[in-house]
Amino acid sequence: MLIYRCGDNMQRYFSKEKKNNEFILGNDDIYHIKTVMRMKDNDNIVVVYENKPYLCCLSNVKENIKINIVKECEIEQDSLPDVTLIIPILKEQKMDLILQKCCELGVNRIIPIITNRSIIKLKESDYAKKITRWNRIVKEASEQSHRVTIPVIDNIMHIESLDKIEGTKIVCSTKEKAKNIKNIMKKLTNCDKINLVIGPEGGLDLKEEEKLNSLGFVSVTLGTRIMRVETVPIFLLSIINYEFME
Amino acid sequence: MLIYRCGDNMQRYFSKEKKNNEFILGNDDIYHIKTVMRMKDNDNIVVVYENKPYLCCLSNVKENIKINIVKECEIEQDSLPDVTLIIPILKEQKMDLILQKCCELGVNRIIPIITNRSIIKLKESDYAKKITRWNRIVKEASEQSHRVTIPVIDNIMHIESLDKIEGTKIVCSTKEKAKNIKNIMKKLTNCDKINLVIGPEGGLDLKEEEKLNSLGFVSVTLGTRIMRVETVPIFLLSIINYEFME
Repeated sequence: MLIYRCGDNMQRYFSKEKKNNEFILGNDDIYHIKTVMRMKDNDNIVVVYENKPYLCCLSNVKENIKINIVKECEIEQDSLPDVTLIIPILKEQKMDLILQKCCELGVNRIIPIITNRSIIKLKESDYAKKITRWNRIVKEASEQSHRVTIPVIDNIMHIESLDKIEGTKIVCSTKEKAKNIKNIMKKLTNCDKINLVIGPEGGLDLKEEEKLNSLGFVSVTLGTRIMRVETVPIFLLSIINYEFME
Repeated sequence: MLIYRCGDNMQRYFSKEKKNNEFILGNDDIYHIKTVMRMKDNDNIVVVYENKPYLCCLSNVKENIKINIVKECEIEQDSLPDVTLIIPILKEQKMDLILQKCCELGVNRIIPIITNRSIIKLKESDYAKKITRWNRIVKEASEQSHRVTIPVIDNIMHIESLDKIEGTKIVCSTKEKAKNIKNIMKKLTNCDKINLVIGPEGGLDLKEEEKLNSLGFVSVTLGTRIMRVETVPIFLLSIINYEFME
């Protein structure tokens, strides 16, 4: 993941469209600029386009707003590996917190999974609505934490479909005999991709954990502390940031 | 801090009063047992009294509930040092999240401070009400995370009053030249007490940071990531747990 340092105090938005020397933003973003932030002509913002940040200047805000490119901002290379978080569907508030905080802490991809002990039973017809909601949350968190990428949210899947995952694979276990995460992390030199599976409130059931082990996921414990489920991903992303800090 | 493993799935409560072989609980806890959890005679709970957990059995729940001690539970020694978190007064939702999560992650003491750039300006007449609220949050989080101690919340103070703090002293800085937290943490062998100061949304101002430096607080950065203020204490407690994990 990349981060950048230009326009540190400026409001920032992601754009998918560029026309000559201007960016086009979505209606939500334009509403935010005009009505929430009450910006004026000549105010500056940062727009991220194709993973690059640009310093921009606003004009014609009251009528048909124009977002003019001033210059491309410098980018600083990030030392964090590519982290994928694989999490069961949790209650909305917990899910939102995880998405927001893990986005701040540099997660790259999120795979929501169906697990046996999930409290939330989501109908398949509601999947698309949830994913839209989650995408909105990570987009906003990416803007706030000055990311130049937005984490990818996969479709909701079953554990069996995790067979194509590559890189270091870790599953948070409640088994007493599992090694602690520090033991595993200390051996990760030159690791450029980490996948982390987290169980629901009641933990993964034994068959699920065995299935994951058979797919190459190593069971780890997080030490002796008893954490709420939504604290676990934040804890994991924090220690990965720490371990790979330069 | 101590944690324990007896009655892992049981509801737990803190008691301040013991009479012969019975514990006395507060009205909130009794309401929770009877009305929220709908417990019955012979159900078990864990009661923590003077930092020790006890397996208990309920009787006479419908009338005048009795909480009878069955046995003392085993305690496991924790490897975490004594952590004090020194935080500005933040908006209620952020403050609540920090208190709950840091409680799960083993914080021992919390000192709320007044800083120049705090968005929240609290009247002195409202201090007591806030502290009561914060104490309730850490009590509930301590029960849920199976702690045998409840973090102490100090009275709201000014930075100048932090002159009596002992142990390792760290202040999260936005100065470019500050060392990163990993450099500092790696040197902390045999550290049994850590104090962490976190600034408000806009950061501590230069004079505040210099005052803290003069009181022995070392300025550190948390790397290149841009985090919301409420993420910082959770990040810090996570890496301290990780660094002191055995």
